Amino acid sequence: MLPLIAFVSDFGWDDAWVGVCHAVVARSCPQARVVDLSHGVSPFDIRKGAAVAAAGVYQLPEAIHLVVVDPGVGGGRADLLIATNQGTKLVGPDNGVLMAAAWRAGGVDRAWAIDPMKVGFEGPLPTFHARDVLAPAAAALCCGVEPASLGDPLDAGSLVPSPFGPAEREGDSVKTEIVEHDRYGSLRFSVAAERIDELGLGTPELEVSLGHHILRVPFAQTFSDVSPGDPVALIDSSGWLTLAINRSSAAERYGIEPGAPAHLRGLA
Amino acid sequence: MLPLIAFVSDFGWDDAWVGVCHAVVARSCPQARVVDLSHGVSPFDIRKGAAVAAAGVYQLPEAIHLVVVDPGVGGGRADLLIATNQGTKLVGPDNGVLMAAAWRAGGVDRAWAIDPMKVGFEGPLPTFHARDVLAPAAAALCCGVEPASLGDPLDAGSLVPSPFGPAEREGDSVKTEIVEHDRYGSLRFSVAAERIDELGLGTPELEVSLGHHILRVPFAQTFSDVSPGDPVALIDSSGWLTLAINRSSAAERYGIEPGAPAHLRGLA
Amino acid sequence: MLPLIAFVSDFGWDDAWVGVCHAVVARSCPQARVVDLSHGVSPFDIRKGAAVAAAGVYQLPEAIHLVVVDPGVGGGRADLLIATNQGTKLVGPDNGVLMAAAWRAGGVDRAWAIDPMKVGFEGPLPTFHARDVLAPAAAALCCGVEPASLGDPLDAGSLVPSPFGPAEREGDSVKTEIVEHDRYGSLRFSVAAERIDELGLGTPELEVSLGHHILRVPFAQTFSDVSPGDPVALIDSSGWLTLAINRSSAAERYGIEPGAPAHLRGLA
Repeated sequence: MLPLIAFVSDFGWDDAWVGVCHAVVARSCPQARVVDLSHGVSPFDIRKGAAVAAAGVYQLPEAIHLVVVDPGVGGGRADLLIATNQGTKLVGPDNGVLMAAAWRAGGVDRAWAIDPMKVGFEGPLPTFHARDVLAPAAAALCCGVEPASLGDPLDAGSLVPSPFGPAEREGDSVKTEIVEHDRYGSLRFSVAAERIDELGLGTPELEVSLGHHILRVPFAQTFSDVSPGDPVALIDSSGWLTLAINRSSAAERYGIEPGAPAHLRGLA
Repeated sequence: MLPLIAFVSDFGWDDAWVGVCHAVVARSCPQARVVDLSHGVSPFDIRKGAAVAAAGVYQLPEAIHLVVVDPGVGGGRADLLIATNQGTKLVGPDNGVLMAAAWRAGGVDRAWAIDPMKVGFEGPLPTFHARDVLAPAAAALCCGVEPASLGDPLDAGSLVPSPFGPAEREGDSVKTEIVEHDRYGSLRFSVAAERIDELGLGTPELEVSLGHHILRVPFAQTFSDVSPGDPVALIDSSGWLTLAINRSSAAERYGIEPGAPAHLRGLA
Repeated sequence: MLPLIAFVSDFGWDDAWVGVCHAVVARSCPQARVVDLSHGVSPFDIRKGAAVAAAGVYQLPEAIHLVVVDPGVGGGRADLLIATNQGTKLVGPDNGVLMAAAWRAGGVDRAWAIDPMKVGFEGPLPTFHARDVLAPAAAALCCGVEPASLGDPLDAGSLVPSPFGPAEREGDSVKTEIVEHDRYGSLRFSVAAERIDELGLGTPELEVSLGHHILRVPFAQTFSDVSPGDPVALIDSSGWLTLAINRSSAAERYGIEPGAPAHLRGLA
């Protein structure tokens, strides 16, 4: 199968970093294809990087995911390589940014601290690990190198945790939070599609408590199952349970930011 | 010839959708090349999507054009495949977004409603037809699949019309509108390069009536045929007749938005 | 070695120009890889284009660099091809935008004015030399065409100079300027990594005079060698001496714009 790298970062598109990483991959594994999932994560926003990576893993589980939001670059945090229980491989700094993708892909099976020497980097480590360590490691994986030959094993329990965790039952409702909102203003909850039934949310309607709002919304297939301007709950392309408004922005209407807590309840 | 897909959408670059569509194409037709014409169309702005696609078709007539601005996704509108009279293939929702590209490429020859089953999609249709139906259809075309095997014929007359149409003669002038303005503020009229003479606009000067302005501008080859700060009419890279200002923004100077009507007249 | 084109422009991502240039390269040299270093240069900002290209050349000296910021397009300025003393090839308009990259890559060895006929362009030259002349020339180089067969030799001394030059000694300090600031607000000086020792700046601390500020900052390896919120001097990924603040923005704190003069002094 054609080897794919799915790339997420907070680099933006204006300062050459993304293109340089593409060049590094092209040089070291020419058959690899790099697809850019997002480089518009705000500088240092580990939560948003984790959310985009988790959506990427859901849609492209067989790709190698390179995720770089790295405020502590060069400061001793490990360059991390994770193999998940479903077989997805993740590469990025050990600051939590990989961990939501890891639990979306079955949890951490094994983890390694990438050794810069083993991806060919010899100088003192400066400011751009994405170019010098992480992209080369992703390229090596694409070309069939075994993870274990790129670094030293890490204890999965020692990794920096995810900036947000999976939804949990709390009494007769489900406690969750807003993972992110997308370009259209849809609000994604930390409720994975595959857990809807287990959490009692597979009902025709949901009650959503969010900030000062308590909403009763239909749980439908798509935006246009409700009239323009009406709210709807659905599983969106990212595989998260999502609160949207047909042809408008739920984020604007409800004034809700990522990280806000929410409670959900299935209505029979 | 290397098979190309020219991709336009309102997805933005920040939410993984563009990259996921690239991955879908890479998986299903590895020899296809996807070039991104624009993903900066404002959410749901069918007019702008249609304008960018029309400029794309003019410049890359042999590519397959994948155009996704789709406020009604999932709501019953067809997933459309068009073969134009000049042989260009267009893929996108049936909401008008393909139709300016269609008339720039000679008009609709044949049209089909893509059958999701025929591109391998089996689930209930959710929120992301670009990933599940439209990109797979474009990839199939790239790899040589015949359009007729991807769906069912549609009557060309039944398609949702373009958000803007070609310029027309009205008395001794030409009635047109602003299709879009570009990053530099140049204003593009719905006057295709190939119709300049037929419309009597192939003259050294043009009179342009636009909002409260009546301008007399030289019809030249390039921006710097006039002094910095002066207006000029020319055929720009998109193949539309365009009103520009050398090294400045016509959109700002004249305060004109896309969709504004205009009248043009050739001056002998 | 896989032939790479590193592409910089002020085209933005919203108007089809970047994608059309990718398509032109794919058609004329399918084995070429195009990596996008930046298309977010502000319209007509030759200084920023030159800065990004110089950072690109430092990191990808073996690539062909296509750099298009071209306010005078069509107005008689040459379409320029440069071979540097270190062997890097640069393609772009003769308006200075290539010249910082040229001195970062050892200076101009030879230069040519590209002849549009020799890259297959036959019409009158309109508004989009990137598509019609410059990208085809870069693609031809990628596929092994000799520079001399693409145009006519130019005298290196006749080229339009760089918008900024290398730092120089002035008494006991070094006179430089801010080349650009990046997405994270780090301020890059026109001091190339390879000249640090020669300029007497290879010391544990530097004195930086910048606007109304006189700072004493450690010269370290990476951002996190200082506490969050503290300033640090380092060589960043672009190979320029850089003033950064760990996890914050130096551009915002000091209120400094590109082009501002600065003086630096090594402190023993």
